[in-house]
Amino acid sequence: MSDPIALSCPVPARRYERIVLAHGGGGRLMRALIDELFARAFASPALCVDHDGAIVELQGRVAVTTDAFTVRPLFFPGGDIGTLAVCGTVNDLAMCGARPRHLAAAFVLEEGLPVATLERIVASMAQAAREAGVTIVTGDTKVVERGKGDGVYITTTGLGTVIGPPIGPARIDAGDVILVSGPVGDHGIAVLSVREGLEFTTTLRSDVAPVAAQVAALLERGVDVRCLRDPTRGGLASALCELASGAGRAFVVREDAIPVRDEVADACELLGLDPLYVACEGRFVAVVARADGERALAVLREVGCGGAAIIGAALEAGASRVILESSVGGERVLDMLSGEQLPRIC
Amino acid sequence: MSDPIALSCPVPARRYERIVLAHGGGGRLMRALIDELFARAFASPALCVDHDGAIVELQGRVAVTTDAFTVRPLFFPGGDIGTLAVCGTVNDLAMCGARPRHLAAAFVLEEGLPVATLERIVASMAQAAREAGVTIVTGDTKVVERGKGDGVYITTTGLGTVIGPPIGPARIDAGDVILVSGPVGDHGIAVLSVREGLEFTTTLRSDVAPVAAQVAALLERGVDVRCLRDPTRGGLASALCELASGAGRAFVVREDAIPVRDEVADACELLGLDPLYVACEGRFVAVVARADGERALAVLREVGCGGAAIIGAALEAGASRVILESSVGGERVLDMLSGEQLPRIC
Repeated sequence: MSDPIALSCPVPARRYERIVLAHGGGGRLMRALIDELFARAFASPALCVDHDGAIVELQGRVAVTTDAFTVRPLFFPGGDIGTLAVCGTVNDLAMCGARPRHLAAAFVLEEGLPVATLERIVASMAQAAREAGVTIVTGDTKVVERGKGDGVYITTTGLGTVIGPPIGPARIDAGDVILVSGPVGDHGIAVLSVREGLEFTTTLRSDVAPVAAQVAALLERGVDVRCLRDPTRGGLASALCELASGAGRAFVVREDAIPVRDEVADACELLGLDPLYVACEGRFVAVVARADGERALAVLREVGCGGAAIIGAALEAGASRVILESSVGGERVLDMLSGEQLPRIC
Repeated sequence: MSDPIALSCPVPARRYERIVLAHGGGGRLMRALIDELFARAFASPALCVDHDGAIVELQGRVAVTTDAFTVRPLFFPGGDIGTLAVCGTVNDLAMCGARPRHLAAAFVLEEGLPVATLERIVASMAQAAREAGVTIVTGDTKVVERGKGDGVYITTTGLGTVIGPPIGPARIDAGDVILVSGPVGDHGIAVLSVREGLEFTTTLRSDVAPVAAQVAALLERGVDVRCLRDPTRGGLASALCELASGAGRAFVVREDAIPVRDEVADACELLGLDPLYVACEGRFVAVVARADGERALAVLREVGCGGAAIIGAALEAGASRVILESSVGGERVLDMLSGEQLPRIC
């Protein structure tokens, strides 16, 4: 018979420097990881570590969204996979016209990941969650063998309460104004710059940030928002194509009007990329009623989107396509991204 | 200038036999995968494929839980990673005393995964969701390079509405009765049997199944349920240790009373495993008020838990530990799983 061990006062687990399989095994080491790392970083009254899930109070229309984050490398100028895992999901809730409230976070860790790396990532998540006004209420940890992952993958799922009337591509009407909340392509180029060891873009940072407050400002000030979309994978062009397709009508956008930083444009030219297909993680497209276009732009600029711009308009119902009026007077049709321009960007 | 292509009527994408990076790229191929595979399998009024998230109606106390599934191999007797990804999360909601309502599903696919494999897994998810009465409302797909994953990892997040009064380890009182809903260890041994190419257990199937209806029966018939827990990773022993720790008291369980199939016991003996630490995926532990113990057992047997049993009781407050009264009259203390007995079991 072994000695009775009081579970409420366990012998402290040896501090591991790297993740081992037992950190995902459901036993003592996993418990220590949860208590010493996750529970401390994500502390809140709603965080539940003693149960299989959390209980939250929600009323009415609830937005729910989920995203797996597999960005490579884990750290990039302006953020890391943790920042991204919080902001990406918070922003998807905002794109549903919702106020982000709670997040769940599931980790797939690769055996051998330095615990210090995980700590940095978790600290970034906690910081981003504070900025976005959300609480991380529940989570999960699995560990896969060395060579079966890539350090860490994080899936976050968000819950938010819908602010205004329903929005969506079907609400887009002829004459509606299309805005973008800031310059596009920063995130993709920032990630690419470290991945490929490029020097020219070292001053460029990812735009990764929560946009929920900016969206809430539009909705709460009564702007007639028809639809929102964040141009992540596939960039602005793919986001516009998706919206046009959902709306069943054509959009026309002016190339001159689309804000792109010089560094991003230069890097894209060098690499043969089109900035309109490069991901952002802190920008959004808003389609608003024609009469509200200028007001929407003013609101956005007031709440921190200095680079926001009106870039185009929706046309009469008909063939869904996105027509780009180029700066030299020509027209071309923007298509959805074909193939894969920048894998593992988020 | 390229020809205008009507996005609402795209040229059908070449049918890919294996997953390529572009299936996660946010462009045309990802769209095709969503439309042709996920949207068809998970079709429901709430499923949202044209938006960044879904809107669901929920009122009051909402249970939320998330789990990453990394089981190896992907297919095992009695189920696959898809069955597991639905049942595991549905069961965690049930363990919160909630009726499962909606799921979100995020996929991390490894480049080269046969599309037919993904189709089988997605079909299993759809089938399990139907059985459990939940709708899959939103999702995400990422693709990682060959050698950076293991076929497919799935994270599901569940939302459920809480049925009765709050439950949790803190509600456990002296004299409360501990039940288990069926024989333990089937899932772990079933997975191990294929992983290790063992022959002796080919007749054994995983117990993976939704238990929400069984839990709802207990709650709706007024059984005073103090706490619920599903003995997944770490098995029955770890689940009991966690509950005892949360309750701040000791439990005593009788080894004779714990249901273990002969095949599981035999396999464990051969492999040097303790069945009390082997995972189940379709069983749960219920701690109920002493007066309700026999009634709880009767309800469970009525709703399909033929192998349910009363296995022990909670003692007075004091040192948290789980005492196992062995069949030969001795006593030993069950500890939480140390190290990792069966990696990647769920």
